Amino acid sequence: MLTYVFEKNGTPLYEQVYDCLKRDILAGVIRPGEKLPSKRTFASHNGISTITIQNAYDQLISEGYVYTIPKKGYYAAKINDMLRVPKKSRISLDIKVPDVPESYEVDLSSNKMNPDHFPFSVWAKVSRETISNQCKELMEVSPTGGILELREAIADYLKSFRGMLVDPDQIVVGAGTEYLYGLLVQLLGTEKEYCIENPGYKKLVQIYRQYQITCRYARMDDDGITVEGLQASGADIAHISPNHHFPTGITMPANRRYEVLAWANEKEGRYIIEDDYDSEFRPSGKPLPTLISMDACEKVIYMNTFSKSLTPTIRISYMILPTHLANRFYEQLSFYSCTVSNFEQYTLAAFLNKGYFEKHINRMRLYYIRQRKKLIQEIEESKLKDCCEIIENEAGLHFLIKLKTQKPDCEIIDKLQKKGIRIQALSEYFFTNDVEKEHYFIVNYSNIELDKISQACDALYEVIR
Amino acid sequence: MLTYVFEKNGTPLYEQVYDCLKRDILAGVIRPGEKLPSKRTFASHNGISTITIQNAYDQLISEGYVYTIPKKGYYAAKINDMLRVPKKSRISLDIKVPDVPESYEVDLSSNKMNPDHFPFSVWAKVSRETISNQCKELMEVSPTGGILELREAIADYLKSFRGMLVDPDQIVVGAGTEYLYGLLVQLLGTEKEYCIENPGYKKLVQIYRQYQITCRYARMDDDGITVEGLQASGADIAHISPNHHFPTGITMPANRRYEVLAWANEKEGRYIIEDDYDSEFRPSGKPLPTLISMDACEKVIYMNTFSKSLTPTIRISYMILPTHLANRFYEQLSFYSCTVSNFEQYTLAAFLNKGYFEKHINRMRLYYIRQRKKLIQEIEESKLKDCCEIIENEAGLHFLIKLKTQKPDCEIIDKLQKKGIRIQALSEYFFTNDVEKEHYFIVNYSNIELDKISQACDALYEVIR
Repeated sequence: MLTYVFEKNGTPLYEQVYDCLKRDILAGVIRPGEKLPSKRTFASHNGISTITIQNAYDQLISEGYVYTIPKKGYYAAKINDMLRVPKKSRISLDIKVPDVPESYEVDLSSNKMNPDHFPFSVWAKVSRETISNQCKELMEVSPTGGILELREAIADYLKSFRGMLVDPDQIVVGAGTEYLYGLLVQLLGTEKEYCIENPGYKKLVQIYRQYQITCRYARMDDDGITVEGLQASGADIAHISPNHHFPTGITMPANRRYEVLAWANEKEGRYIIEDDYDSEFRPSGKPLPTLISMDACEKVIYMNTFSKSLTPTIRISYMILPTHLANRFYEQLSFYSCTVSNFEQYTLAAFLNKGYFEKHINRMRLYYIRQRKKLIQEIEESKLKDCCEIIENEAGLHFLIKLKTQKPDCEIIDKLQKKGIRIQALSEYFFTNDVEKEHYFIVNYSNIELDKISQACDALYEVIR
Repeated sequence: MLTYVFEKNGTPLYEQVYDCLKRDILAGVIRPGEKLPSKRTFASHNGISTITIQNAYDQLISEGYVYTIPKKGYYAAKINDMLRVPKKSRISLDIKVPDVPESYEVDLSSNKMNPDHFPFSVWAKVSRETISNQCKELMEVSPTGGILELREAIADYLKSFRGMLVDPDQIVVGAGTEYLYGLLVQLLGTEKEYCIENPGYKKLVQIYRQYQITCRYARMDDDGITVEGLQASGADIAHISPNHHFPTGITMPANRRYEVLAWANEKEGRYIIEDDYDSEFRPSGKPLPTLISMDACEKVIYMNTFSKSLTPTIRISYMILPTHLANRFYEQLSFYSCTVSNFEQYTLAAFLNKGYFEKHINRMRLYYIRQRKKLIQEIEESKLKDCCEIIENEAGLHFLIKLKTQKPDCEIIDKLQKKGIRIQALSEYFFTNDVEKEHYFIVNYSNIELDKISQACDALYEVIR
């Protein structure tokens, strides 16, 4: 007769019985096909109730360790020996999680926003109000494209702030642009080739590569991506940022825009992805008209993100699809759930509708303009003054600086790194080796401390001369 | 001389000048290459300040409508006529957004949770506390796999509630399982074929199809997916729900589990995706041991979601990767941002750590057990009693009912629909036509009103006899 000792250790008795029996069945102590004692015998022998044994047997039956033959009793199942595997006991595995990025004394490579500038208390207030006032809506499943209230708020914002006329049904909300790129690939088809600006944003290639998509590159000139480059690439989809190119900061003028639109119109199935992130922070004048606003032929897909303009810890981006693609999206992809939670969608909708977002953007733009001015002044008052040229290009949160030096970019970067200064060269952003663009460096000023700039200028001067 | 009438309508004057000039350049009123008046002349002629004209010209230059020749002046750019496209003015486009699903008097097809059961006030409280106490952490960018605090909380929960030993670094948090399926496809490769349970969850096929993945189907028997079916499918990845199969409700017993693991071990590159959603609500006994806990050979990927156990409006799911896949994930995909916002990640972590989640699950399980009991009682006391057989199968939030009838499933469904009752047949969940499984219907009871059941039973009785 099976005899076990049970402990008063908080584990329910039936579970202890279950554990003992399972262990013995797995270990072969109870042989495959062996009859188990009846519930009553087992119970009285071990001094516990039959209902406890019943529960343990039921669990073992449902997991397949025990089977019953009606009117005969309970039997141990045949567990194949070969497959009996020891249960892992360790819980710290040999997984190499990426290191936290090194931090620098001065980091001119980071285009992160200073988190102190996020209007946290306002966001918290709006968030609390949303939870209090909209508990019913919060519990209703969001449509695939995002809740209507948020899509309307985005359309209103785009109308007043960007002069864009958008139907809220054109807008698809998602958890970050990276996610939306993936949706777009599914919508436009993986057989398409994508053309990316050269130089350009390397992460795009990483993302598209995940979908087995071939990326092509098109040369930039001073007006942005060239139509000859686009033509030569053979690609069907142009992924560009006409309003604020990274890293050159180039803004595409109207005539080039019309040329790029004409390229898209030349052939069915050609599209332009207009990546407009950061454009809110354009330092001067009113924001530029977007490509999608110039497009009468349903060729432009517009993308923007609040993760950039508010804080990267909020994952809300959106894309605007031309009519036929919006319809295709709903036909083909409406089985997907929206990836942004209702809480954040309603909070952001209220944040936009109450004008807090516009206020935030205006305040930040002024702040960045001042930062930029002071930074340029610091450079112009430093030793570096005669060894560099600043190329402003009206771009968002960075500008280019051309250094008069014979030293290769990589040497400059390495030497600065040893001094605790991180800077990136324009040459790092080229996808091809055929372009000679040495000695241009990118100065991001969204999150730098101005009082460290003169020291950084001195270091830069020492390194290049 | 260009003469315009400007209005005091709230639009800044420089923008009015800009608009007039742009319109005339686009319309050809100002010819390509035509010299524009000097700032001073233009200003005095129109009675406005030169700085206003300067701002308008600057904007036009940056958009490419105007160019300057140093020391000569401002000129209208050459905009290609052909490409001049009218700006859209309508904002309601012809987009067919999917209809809101019809609502029924009694809906036995919905496995949605009743939103009233979401512990809203507790969630709101935890959410408020998170915003107040963790504002610093909320502003730090989440690692790709999710914040450590949440991953640790999930590991702790799985240990105490599911008996699973998991390294938090194995856990990848994402905005919904659909998103995580996409990540998995990228991780395992689109050249793989996926095998799905037949009958099974149709959305999986829709999702995998988006990645150009071929889905195969494997026959189920009373113990779940069959190994012969898996072998015959030729697929490398088995996507299964051994703990609670939908729609049959079958639980896979231990010996079949070991067989399925053996199948995975037979060949390199084979994996099992263990989809464990809803398993928290298993009505009786302690939760079943998961397949991943039995797996010593790094073959099982575990998936679960809080969108199912809490509310679909919160988009947080997670997967547990075996060591080598976790490492591959970090090597190959760590450039991705986490798709869940920090606010929700920290709130959920606190919700788990404070025991609220476990309390919620326990309360809901008891509630569902009672619902199920009452529902079965109602059926057994109705006219339907002698024309049906209930197949419980211990599954989460539904059971099967076999109707004794000669009428085809589709006729029964149609007729019921006309009476305001929605029910789904098991036969609708088969991917192939070679299986005869008529007259089994799925009864979801997660969100039904019990007082309408006797009426539904009567209707069902009328329809089938």
